[in-house]
Parts: sequence; structure tokens; C-alpha cells
Amino acid sequence: MSGAILVLSGPSGAGKSTIIDSASNRIGEYYFSISTTTREPREGEVHGVDYYFVSKEEFEEDIKAGQFLEYATVHSNYYGTSLKPVKEALEMGKLVIFDIDVQGHRLVRAKMGDLVTSAFITPPSLKELERRLYGRSTDKSYIIEQRIENAKEEIKAIGEFDFVIINDIIDRASLEFATIANASRLKLSKQELENLVVQWENGLS
Amino acid sequence: MSGAILVLSGPSGAGKSTIIDSASNRIGEYYFSISTTTREPREGEVHGVDYYFVSKEEFEEDIKAGQFLEYATVHSNYYGTSLKPVKEALEMGKLVIFDIDVQGHRLVRAKMGDLVTSAFITPPSLKELERRLYGRSTDKSYIIEQRIENAKEEIKAIGEFDFVIINDIIDRASLEFATIANASRLKLSKQELENLVVQWENGLS
Repeated sequence: MSGAILVLSGPSGAGKSTIIDSASNRIGEYYFSISTTTREPREGEVHGVDYYFVSKEEFEEDIKAGQFLEYATVHSNYYGTSLKPVKEALEMGKLVIFDIDVQGHRLVRAKMGDLVTSAFITPPSLKELERRLYGRSTDKSYIIEQRIENAKEEIKAIGEFDFVIINDIIDRASLEFATIANASRLKLSKQELENLVVQWENGLS
Repeated sequence: MSGAILVLSGPSGAGKSTIIDSASNRIGEYYFSISTTTREPREGEVHGVDYYFVSKEEFEEDIKAGQFLEYATVHSNYYGTSLKPVKEALEMGKLVIFDIDVQGHRLVRAKMGDLVTSAFITPPSLKELERRLYGRSTDKSYIIEQRIENAKEEIKAIGEFDFVIINDIIDRASLEFATIANASRLKLSKQELENLVVQWENGLS
């Protein structure tokens, strides 16, 4: 049994991290893919926990070396996912959870589509997103404005996702996320399906 | 919020009914779609519970009247799903569960694909299926042989399904089914997604 991939996307401020944290005791063991970025750490963010923070030069070297499963430029910064830890976790049969943007979702689906389940997480409205982003106020207002413009674009891709989680009431959103995560583990890859049919006919399982 | 559809397929003898029954207290309210058939009732089967048992003439009249969501001929008998109760249940926001064959799955997906999640349920091997079918012994052996031949064909369509449930240990299969059923409720139709994006931008939700 190989692992499975769950991609989560949605506007910054949708509450993705909070949802994952609050559901973690209901979804069994998983590997949370840590993205690599060239953007500056926010207050409280830790290298190797929230992101791998690297320089633009380091990031571009890794691109050349083919070490990214996906990467993109957002707000003039690079964001990417290193392939190696993901492959290792999948080989161990783990559920790998990605918190990436809609571009990243497209790229991961194109490369590993038969392992992917995806969910778009969003606050109930644009107004509520604005309220949360300004309320959090860890970012300068021009950065918040950029995030809001980005959210308006990202919501247009909502139809590309298997599921949508409206993060209105956190307990409900967390339960919905856990349900989706547990279902995503049951998805079989093409390879697993082929093996299953052969074994099924020959009575090996 | 409109309802959702969960299609279950798999060989006769896979244990689909047992799995649904044993999971029913974990999956909330649902409408189980009762198929209409022209085959003879087996011992213990009840009209309006297991199937609607009708004559060939009645079935063919309903076909002409366009009253089937899907229908097919299997082992020289008609099997079909009437559209009306399904539509009513969906309008009430219910999860509608179908126990239909792989042909039926294709037809339902073609007509209502944006509402459909599907799972293929199978015993762990062909040998085990044979053991269960002969052990049940409610059918004549030529019927069992036909079911086995049919199962060998149906397993080839396993890749068309979103999920696979191996019914080896019934408690595990039942839990997996409940997880899939609860996730399938979270799937949004195209119409719901379009409404959501409009409301999201205008702050109506």
C-alpha cells in the first residue's frame, strides 16, 4: 500500500493551519509537507517548521537541479515543494498533506494525479476574509491588499478541487477536513489498482 | 445545499448490503435508491424493500416513458433506477446511495457526474467470492456461475471508481464505507460552486 496526497489550497487567512492542527487527533499519522520559500519569515515563524526559508540563489539552484515537485512565484517570492521528503513519506505509506496555492495544486495533480485528493478552504465571504486579514495585522497593509487581490483570483479555481470547506464554524470545518483526509487515504493509485486486479484473479490476497 | 450521490458497485456476494446496514448509524440520514427489476425475487426478498419487482411489460413501458435514470439488462433481466424518487431526495438535500452495476455507474456519472462519488466493493479475491456465493447457496449453481463470470468482467472497471473497499474484515470495510459516505456529502455540484463564488464576492453568506 503506497501513500496518498491531500492538497489544501485557499486564501491566506482561510485558517488552513488551524484546521489541520485541530483535526490532527482524528486523522491518524500524516506527513505535512513543508514548503520552501524566499519570502521573509513573519514574526513567530520558524525555519523547518513553517517553511524552509532560503535565499533566491539557493532556490534557483534547486530549480536547476530538478529538486522541486512544484514551484511558483507569488508576490515576487518563490514558493516550492521539494520532491525528496514527499517521495519518502509516500513510500512509507503515509498521507502527505500539502498547503499550496491553486497553481501548485495544478502542478501536483499533473504529476501525481492518481494519488491526489484536494480541498479548497475559504472563509465564508470576501468581507470575512478582509476582516480576518486586517484583524491579524501581522502584515503591512500593502501585503494584505495583495493577498486579497490574490484571493479573488484563487476563488475562481474552486471548481478544480474535489471538495470545498467553508471555514465558518471551526469545529465543523475541522470535522469536515478530518472526513476528507480519512477518505483520501482510501484512494488507490493506478499501480495499486493494477496489482489488486491481478492478485484478485489469482487468489493471492 | 443540494444532495449528493454515492454509487456502490461490485460483484453480487461482495457484501454491499451488509456494509451499508452496519454503517448506517455512522453516516447520518440517507436515501437508499431501490432498484426496479424483472428478475424473480430470491427467498426472503421483499417488494419495495429489496427491489421493486415488476413484469417485463411494465418495465418496458417505463423505459418508453423516460422514467429511468439508468437501466440495463443483466443475466437476461432488466434492472433500473427510477428518476423521480432520486430527484426528490436530492432536492431535500439527502445523500442518495445507489447499489448498481458498473454499467449503471457509467450512466449515472454521465448524467449527474458533478454530484457523484463512487466506490467499488469487492471480496479480497475471486476464490473468496466463489466461496461466499456457493456458501450462501440461495441460488442455483448456473446462476452462481453467471455471477462469477460477471464479477470477472466487473473487476476490470475498478479503475473508474473514486474508491475501492476490500471487504475482508467487515468492521474495517464498514468504517471505510462510512468515511467515504460522509466525504461524499461534502462534494458540491457545479451549480452550488457557481452560487458560492457569486455570494463569496458579494458578501452575501
